[in-house]
Amino acid sequence: MGSQLLDSAVNSFASLPGVGRKTALRLVLNLLRRSETEVQGFADSITRLKQEVHYCSECRNISDTEICPICNNPRRDHSIICVVENVQDVMSIENTGQYNGVYHVLGGVISPIDGIGPKDIEVDKLIERVLTGDVKEVILALPTTMEGDTTNFYLYRRIINSLEQAGMSTDSLTVSLIARGIAIGNELEYTDEITLGRSILNRTIFNG
Amino acid sequence: MGSQLLDSAVNSFASLPGVGRKTALRLVLNLLRRSETEVQGFADSITRLKQEVHYCSECRNISDTEICPICNNPRRDHSIICVVENVQDVMSIENTGQYNGVYHVLGGVISPIDGIGPKDIEVDKLIERVLTGDVKEVILALPTTMEGDTTNFYLYRRIINSLEQAGMSTDSLTVSLIARGIAIGNELEYTDEITLGRSILNRTIFNG
Repeated sequence: MGSQLLDSAVNSFASLPGVGRKTALRLVLNLLRRSETEVQGFADSITRLKQEVHYCSECRNISDTEICPICNNPRRDHSIICVVENVQDVMSIENTGQYNGVYHVLGGVISPIDGIGPKDIEVDKLIERVLTGDVKEVILALPTTMEGDTTNFYLYRRIINSLEQAGMSTDSLTVSLIARGIAIGNELEYTDEITLGRSILNRTIFNG
Repeated sequence: MGSQLLDSAVNSFASLPGVGRKTALRLVLNLLRRSETEVQGFADSITRLKQEVHYCSECRNISDTEICPICNNPRRDHSIICVVENVQDVMSIENTGQYNGVYHVLGGVISPIDGIGPKDIEVDKLIERVLTGDVKEVILALPTTMEGDTTNFYLYRRIINSLEQAGMSTDSLTVSLIARGIAIGNELEYTDEITLGRSILNRTIFNG
């Protein structure tokens, strides 16, 4: 292109997921039209995030503080832990406004094909939280994929085994799974067979 | 979201054209998974570009140096100037490998509706280059929009008037327009009427 400075900035953007070289160029040229202060602010917001962000020491959610605002909120129900794959999932569930418990962010799901085993996700801290005895329910809200299912089974076994080893009753803890079925607004004929089959097997009682 | 650092970085990315908040979040979380060095490099490539990049003093193309590599290349034909709207257009034409002249980047086209007048684009420098007497052809390669057409007419008049005022002959300079017509590989039936109509009016002689 002639300009190595331009090349270098374009390469940076093109390294992001889903951003091709043409898009990267368009983004960089957009930045170039802005004031120096604005561009500096853009760059600073990235470096500051990386340097200063915390992962909540309780739930591993992203946070500006040692403990995230959700874990720190006394009005949330700390006896219910919703286990999710990543930070986006916390935001998605928060956006529904339907959940008042706390979270646990695994930072991934078990995926042998990608070389991600149980040790690569944040299981130990979850077990530690369960073993305090203050937890009444663990909701597994992982992706409805083979990897998500594998992780669900693994977590369930780890939780039960840990309680037993600690000599604690397993009756006081419910492990639940988020509902799977036909998405709201979808036609049955366009739903895949596996989902449709499961939604019949896992039907719920209709209250009229 | 809870994290202002995250919000701030997401806002930065979401301010880019065509990037919504969900995409911005995905990009930021991708950066967050990288090493601090890599993130610093990303941010630096942006600030360095803004602080150190030049606009070629001849043609206003983006450049690491005072004069861009195209204007500085003695093997390019400096008697032909191709006038384009922006830096991307220079790259697009360079990528065709069909052009060996030099460029002039206007930095925009005249668009009264957007408040962009002749003074907001780099016309004076173009006239200055034409008045040196070394230019044999000016190729107008602006967008085929109303704004592009308006700018074509304006540039043509400015060039002719300037030559006349300087007492120079207008015969020695050709002002040309890039060809407009059916795009290569397109079917006639899917071409819009205006393009098709013009391509009949502006037909060229077929050499068999």
